[in-house]
Amino acid sequence: MTLDDLHDDDKLHEECGVYAVHGHKGAAALVTLGLHALQHRGQEAAGIVSYDGNEFYNHRALGLVGDNFSSQAVIKRLKGHSSIGHTRYSTTGETALRNVQPLFADLHEGGFALCHNGNLTNSQKIRDQLVMRGSIFQSTMDTEVILHLVATSIQDTIVGKVIDAIQRIQGAYALLCMTKEGVIAVRDPNGIRPLVLGKFEDGYVVASETCALDIIGAEFIRDVEPGELIVITDKGVESMRPFPPTPKQTCIFEYIYFARPDSVIDGISVYEARKNIGKELAIENHIESDVVVPVPDSGVPAAIGYSQESGVPFELGIIRNHYVGRTFIEPSQQIRNLGVKLKHNANKAVLEGKRVILVDDSLVRGTTSLKIVEMVRAAGAKEVHMRIASPPIGYPYFYGIDISKSKELLAAQMSLEEMTKYIGVDSLAFLSIDGMYRAMGLEGRDNKLPQYCDSPFTGFYPTRIDDYQDDVGNVPEFMKPKKTG
Amino acid sequence: MTLDDLHDDDKLHEECGVYAVHGHKGAAALVTLGLHALQHRGQEAAGIVSYDGNEFYNHRALGLVGDNFSSQAVIKRLKGHSSIGHTRYSTTGETALRNVQPLFADLHEGGFALCHNGNLTNSQKIRDQLVMRGSIFQSTMDTEVILHLVATSIQDTIVGKVIDAIQRIQGAYALLCMTKEGVIAVRDPNGIRPLVLGKFEDGYVVASETCALDIIGAEFIRDVEPGELIVITDKGVESMRPFPPTPKQTCIFEYIYFARPDSVIDGISVYEARKNIGKELAIENHIESDVVVPVPDSGVPAAIGYSQESGVPFELGIIRNHYVGRTFIEPSQQIRNLGVKLKHNANKAVLEGKRVILVDDSLVRGTTSLKIVEMVRAAGAKEVHMRIASPPIGYPYFYGIDISKSKELLAAQMSLEEMTKYIGVDSLAFLSIDGMYRAMGLEGRDNKLPQYCDSPFTGFYPTRIDDYQDDVGNVPEFMKPKKTG
Amino acid sequence: MTLDDLHDDDKLHEECGVYAVHGHKGAAALVTLGLHALQHRGQEAAGIVSYDGNEFYNHRALGLVGDNFSSQAVIKRLKGHSSIGHTRYSTTGETALRNVQPLFADLHEGGFALCHNGNLTNSQKIRDQLVMRGSIFQSTMDTEVILHLVATSIQDTIVGKVIDAIQRIQGAYALLCMTKEGVIAVRDPNGIRPLVLGKFEDGYVVASETCALDIIGAEFIRDVEPGELIVITDKGVESMRPFPPTPKQTCIFEYIYFARPDSVIDGISVYEARKNIGKELAIENHIESDVVVPVPDSGVPAAIGYSQESGVPFELGIIRNHYVGRTFIEPSQQIRNLGVKLKHNANKAVLEGKRVILVDDSLVRGTTSLKIVEMVRAAGAKEVHMRIASPPIGYPYFYGIDISKSKELLAAQMSLEEMTKYIGVDSLAFLSIDGMYRAMGLEGRDNKLPQYCDSPFTGFYPTRIDDYQDDVGNVPEFMKPKKTG
Amino acid sequence: MTLDDLHDDDKLHEECGVYAVHGHKGAAALVTLGLHALQHRGQEAAGIVSYDGNEFYNHRALGLVGDNFSSQAVIKRLKGHSSIGHTRYSTTGETALRNVQPLFADLHEGGFALCHNGNLTNSQKIRDQLVMRGSIFQSTMDTEVILHLVATSIQDTIVGKVIDAIQRIQGAYALLCMTKEGVIAVRDPNGIRPLVLGKFEDGYVVASETCALDIIGAEFIRDVEPGELIVITDKGVESMRPFPPTPKQTCIFEYIYFARPDSVIDGISVYEARKNIGKELAIENHIESDVVVPVPDSGVPAAIGYSQESGVPFELGIIRNHYVGRTFIEPSQQIRNLGVKLKHNANKAVLEGKRVILVDDSLVRGTTSLKIVEMVRAAGAKEVHMRIASPPIGYPYFYGIDISKSKELLAAQMSLEEMTKYIGVDSLAFLSIDGMYRAMGLEGRDNKLPQYCDSPFTGFYPTRIDDYQDDVGNVPEFMKPKKTG
Repeated sequence: MTLDDLHDDDKLHEECGVYAVHGHKGAAALVTLGLHALQHRGQEAAGIVSYDGNEFYNHRALGLVGDNFSSQAVIKRLKGHSSIGHTRYSTTGETALRNVQPLFADLHEGGFALCHNGNLTNSQKIRDQLVMRGSIFQSTMDTEVILHLVATSIQDTIVGKVIDAIQRIQGAYALLCMTKEGVIAVRDPNGIRPLVLGKFEDGYVVASETCALDIIGAEFIRDVEPGELIVITDKGVESMRPFPPTPKQTCIFEYIYFARPDSVIDGISVYEARKNIGKELAIENHIESDVVVPVPDSGVPAAIGYSQESGVPFELGIIRNHYVGRTFIEPSQQIRNLGVKLKHNANKAVLEGKRVILVDDSLVRGTTSLKIVEMVRAAGAKEVHMRIASPPIGYPYFYGIDISKSKELLAAQMSLEEMTKYIGVDSLAFLSIDGMYRAMGLEGRDNKLPQYCDSPFTGFYPTRIDDYQDDVGNVPEFMKPKKTG
Repeated sequence: MTLDDLHDDDKLHEECGVYAVHGHKGAAALVTLGLHALQHRGQEAAGIVSYDGNEFYNHRALGLVGDNFSSQAVIKRLKGHSSIGHTRYSTTGETALRNVQPLFADLHEGGFALCHNGNLTNSQKIRDQLVMRGSIFQSTMDTEVILHLVATSIQDTIVGKVIDAIQRIQGAYALLCMTKEGVIAVRDPNGIRPLVLGKFEDGYVVASETCALDIIGAEFIRDVEPGELIVITDKGVESMRPFPPTPKQTCIFEYIYFARPDSVIDGISVYEARKNIGKELAIENHIESDVVVPVPDSGVPAAIGYSQESGVPFELGIIRNHYVGRTFIEPSQQIRNLGVKLKHNANKAVLEGKRVILVDDSLVRGTTSLKIVEMVRAAGAKEVHMRIASPPIGYPYFYGIDISKSKELLAAQMSLEEMTKYIGVDSLAFLSIDGMYRAMGLEGRDNKLPQYCDSPFTGFYPTRIDDYQDDVGNVPEFMKPKKTG
Repeated sequence: MTLDDLHDDDKLHEECGVYAVHGHKGAAALVTLGLHALQHRGQEAAGIVSYDGNEFYNHRALGLVGDNFSSQAVIKRLKGHSSIGHTRYSTTGETALRNVQPLFADLHEGGFALCHNGNLTNSQKIRDQLVMRGSIFQSTMDTEVILHLVATSIQDTIVGKVIDAIQRIQGAYALLCMTKEGVIAVRDPNGIRPLVLGKFEDGYVVASETCALDIIGAEFIRDVEPGELIVITDKGVESMRPFPPTPKQTCIFEYIYFARPDSVIDGISVYEARKNIGKELAIENHIESDVVVPVPDSGVPAAIGYSQESGVPFELGIIRNHYVGRTFIEPSQQIRNLGVKLKHNANKAVLEGKRVILVDDSLVRGTTSLKIVEMVRAAGAKEVHMRIASPPIGYPYFYGIDISKSKELLAAQMSLEEMTKYIGVDSLAFLSIDGMYRAMGLEGRDNKLPQYCDSPFTGFYPTRIDDYQDDVGNVPEFMKPKKTG
Repeated sequence: MTLDDLHDDDKLHEECGVYAVHGHKGAAALVTLGLHALQHRGQEAAGIVSYDGNEFYNHRALGLVGDNFSSQAVIKRLKGHSSIGHTRYSTTGETALRNVQPLFADLHEGGFALCHNGNLTNSQKIRDQLVMRGSIFQSTMDTEVILHLVATSIQDTIVGKVIDAIQRIQGAYALLCMTKEGVIAVRDPNGIRPLVLGKFEDGYVVASETCALDIIGAEFIRDVEPGELIVITDKGVESMRPFPPTPKQTCIFEYIYFARPDSVIDGISVYEARKNIGKELAIENHIESDVVVPVPDSGVPAAIGYSQESGVPFELGIIRNHYVGRTFIEPSQQIRNLGVKLKHNANKAVLEGKRVILVDDSLVRGTTSLKIVEMVRAAGAKEVHMRIASPPIGYPYFYGIDISKSKELLAAQMSLEEMTKYIGVDSLAFLSIDGMYRAMGLEGRDNKLPQYCDSPFTGFYPTRIDDYQDDVGNVPEFMKPKKTG
């Protein structure tokens, strides 16, 4: 058994974080810090490219930012006033150095670097066309499609080539490009993935989340808007709108699970959103109990909200071991629930003889949940009531989460009653879809034009998904994607 | 700047964890898991020795247990039904592989392995005598003194030699030895360091803390008693008492900071102790406020207790980045408080415009505290009130914490008023010493015979400290150690 | 100082070796052995690609074949009955993993791998055109130009695309391609670089030299002919002639220095050629003396020939240290001639009081030679007479040797008398150009149509050299390249 | 199959080289170079200790000197004017870092480092006594016994303690110690292992062989004499004689195989000795033939001597591949003699149709020889006559060669006729024992008091061999060791 299994087991994973600095001496050092603050968006690999007016420099490595980018030797090599970086959790493409972004190409116009958070939904089709024409792909990433589209565009300027390229792609993307002139940033027309603009001294910063502005003390200017393309050069910031107006539909999973709680996305605090979710959960499905216990760490804000709403005391009934590496052996068949115990231990002092509300952020396959419940019961809990801080996940997702696991989604296979039994709890309740929207400050979901991209819960897909039409063909008719255009 | 500085900066560090299994096939795999659960007691290095009836096997490595011991290849090599292991934070001796325990010696009677949590207070004196006599030391650790005392003892049996050795040493120790017969465990006469006995299937387990029994599902039998020596062989467990009766004086810092909250030491839940400390803090020093915010992660249980006692809501006002490696560059002088931001970020949504109670477990040098306060203020807090979940630390400590830092102890240099100003808070309060004892369920401290070893707060030293007499000679007369015997 | 300097110092370097096996289970294991036998042609890096009917596998590494390709794990991953490999000494492009061959591309028709011994003389011009068109280059190697030419060819078949590509390139090349059908091998129209065809059990082998057939016991079939393209599939070997007939002009430096002495190129034993060169040297320039001493190891066969012709005894007067790594410090300015002493030591017993004939294969910058002479004199030699087993090198070379060093060629800067003084010998003599041709079994050089490519000695260039016209423009008029076509 | 097998296969291995410098700034850099020149005496590991008047520094590593000691960073750390170093081929003790010398101990008198070329013959017995007394051994090396003898000696001075120690040990040793005062060097009473004294500028050098003086340009002063102890301090060199006079009996295998040909041992050139051996071989056992071919590289000097004496031309009929790493796979059962082909290839041009004299330095197990003969025949040789440049090896050896292989000695199992058939040659001849002594400039062996230690050929052991009495008990009575004292 490996912890990779554990990781994949009962959580969906965010794919990537992106970060750019232009106009500050030592840009790459700032990018290193920004990527460190975005580490939760991808721990497999990281890369940084910089430009000093003469040459492009790059460093890419498998593993954490802090382990690979924080030595003086590395930072000194990444010279220049302009830099972009990327931290990766693989969504497409194997884990190998050639799949670490930013990608780089020597175009006729000069060096061009590119990195991307999100997932394209027609990259396979475009790739086939490009290969036919003689383009040679070096990676298995969808991002490389954008690079070749830029390289083969017949537009005169690099910005023109980038616009050419993004007008051919579908899906979710927060995109950062670097040229000799500066940085180009694009957020997809629906704004599915977040992207923010900030200022640090005389330079500009673009980042996936505001927490990555905070780490360097950069000032938040505004969210990059859906469908907006921003060009940052020595002359300042220029904004372009290469797409027709499209409704903003940010991925609601950013609020539920992906983003860091100290980030603010499109004006809404992630921490407050989660606490509100916890409150909605308590309003919708409270049950008499003695303690509210979060599944750490992602369940904590919702549990605090639940506790505040219900008045039941919040307690650390499960303690997390933070020293968890990537893999661990299974030493003995007799040790039950080992996997979960490598990360968590029940805190008997809190649980023994108690009626426990267990709050988790989501339920994917359920395999970890059932082990946690077993552990909580073994510690002496009298009753265990599981409260999930999101609706049931029943649909595949194509915008940046590992889709291959979706067939094992518990909620797509079982009824609520079956799930309750499978996980072994006394009661199980999910947040309702409208409850989720209420936690976001709305009255409920606008089913005609949903205010968020909520595909995993509803099967609604805001973009064309050419590469995946067959995948959604397998789900029941009523679950099929409703295309926007 | 390195994170080592950060680590050392404003926290005291526990030194080591020890773990033994005897009588279970695949003992080393269980020890690996046990050490993983004790990782908080030392992250610098780890080592395991095992014995299979024929040969001793060992593996030692710098770094985390999960990174170095969890591959099948490593575990397969550590054959046998008997095994001891150690996880290390250096207190004496540089960080180098030769300083990683368990130590091993081929005695005339056969192989002998040894590991140790704690710190001896007369090891230098004994070492000098042994070198004079021709003993060759391979490490700079105090633990090696015990090994040579055992090797040169004229007793006939290994147990006899071990007793010979421990009767010559002073200080704090939870000691595990392994011979061809089995495991020998010793807790120092005052019981300063914790040690527990458990059972897993047909085998016995000895561990620094109960959380390390939990991870493998071992059953807790009892604490090893102060001054007790336990011999575990294939015939079972035998208990000996090689010392005259001595009052139990467990290190109170185990409850305040060192141990994991899910552990139970000498019958008292660490989590409950910390919550009670938070409650005492609120009783002693509450002030009107809007939110109670812990400095994560160690301040969380006390903050929960404080919130429950005071009724002020508990909120995650500071978010921790869990992906922190060992070192990180300081990229720019202009980035203020970077060090602390690598680990923490202020959660503006919680802090802005609020009167904040900040709860931390202890105050050592204050350097991190002042940066956190600055960060909290920058996020818009209207008032900041720091509450420390332990009394002021004013005295050196010789039983397992890095003593070299003690001269920089804030509370030894400044008055409360000065500290308040230095840290930049609106108010600062520490737990009183009697409050600390009340949180432990007592009426207060028995100054004639303190119920715990509380040297850092009181300068009371329960053992002889031959190597350090001069060190305490420098502190004012009233602070000098009061010896027990 | 580094040994790289030493290496580059007084020797020209061969650039690469190539090896292919088709039609034998475990092809990659055979390629590994073949590359090991070709290690003298390039020690910087090596790579192997294989195909098993389903997938392409590849492994590339900086360093020696034996250090990186001989583990069971590596070989097991390189599955299949078809495989090509490459061992590299960089001629163009920095030393980095992305510059290690074989290159690979997913063409529309399927996987395509490519590796190359030699150097193109118009790659920069073609590269510029390809980039303009949208091709993205991943390496700095001239070889990648061929890959993009193949990818963008509008021919229908891969063989057709390869022919398209080679008809656009100039220079020297022994080229190996691998497709799903099998292996394609090409030797440039002049046959500048060697390439041989062999048979091993039911499979075919293509290799740079015959010594790499010997290592696996493969049977030598014939040299691939200049301008020949060979297609090896499961149906057997097919030969094509995509070029007009061109005179064969094998690089004569293969005989003098590059190839292994146990190889046979175009019907002539390299060892015999070198011995004959030594004999011609003795005929042309003998002087009375006591011992013939080779500069090891490359001067040994010529010294044996010299000794046999002259009757002066052959002795190991210089001993070579075979344990030389890549770099070594210069510990002290006072140690004279250290560089050369890391590799060589004078054998006083042979040299003291003797008149010494020192035989070396070539004279490039002379820096090593003068240190060796000094060392020989310090060991007590009475007279030192240097005999060089090749003519003076006075011209740049564009077909596979590091050209950047050519400006420092001693023979281009000094007269014979000046060189004699500079190196510090009592006499210095080179082989004459006609003597070199006589040693090859000819009556002399045919100046109208030279029988070998001998550019470094004569400035004659058998191919167009579009990228380098300016370089040769700097040499005196009489030294300028005479183009063939 | 691994190349280790190849290495062990048909050669005996030297064990170690030692080197010391005292009185020169940057002593460790000189030691690095010296060890590089002694690399042929041990390639498994190397270590250096230095002293700068304040502290001892050390660096030890598995692998070659050039790979591990030549970086500026390593050399800069090894500060000081005094340094000793060691290069190791394991004779006793597994290959592990703890078994890499120099060993180091903090004695009461200060730091003490020690390294050793040779093998003790009573170390096991002494070790048992020391362990009984309480000494803890950290390695499995016999050398550590000396360290503990020094540490436990009751003499007042370190020199006195060293003398105490060497008077208790038996066997062969060239010993270097370093203290705060300087360097102590000892050669065993019989002078079995070589050791020389030199001068470099103001400092002194001690080395296993003269070739290691040459590399830094140090001046040879004299051989350290058998039984001599030399103390080198800032005051100069002092010589002591702690043993009764003992006949000098240098290991004759140093001349035959171990030492580098450019070294001079006890006044005799190793190269000349080998050439003389070749001449004696030709005198004793010549046969009509066309070419004399050495098995490279060790057979070359004897083959030159043979050729000069017999008049048959010397030719490189076997070409050696110098790029051989440690291990290599066996890719296919069908490839015969692969092992030998990784290192050697037959040079057909020289062998085809010829009557070949093959000269090798020694015959151990014969496994490599028979493969080389097969390879030579496959290349077309008409006749193959093997001439061995030493007598048959029939006895175990205890002074520094891996003894465990001795049971597989071909000459101990077969008659000359059987060996001839086994190896597959037309004739086989060894040098006679008296021929060997004649080659050394003597009239023959003095059987009453042999002039050299020649145990492998005669079973004569010049020292007591307490640990090995039982081993020699198994050989026939007439072969048993004749002790000297």
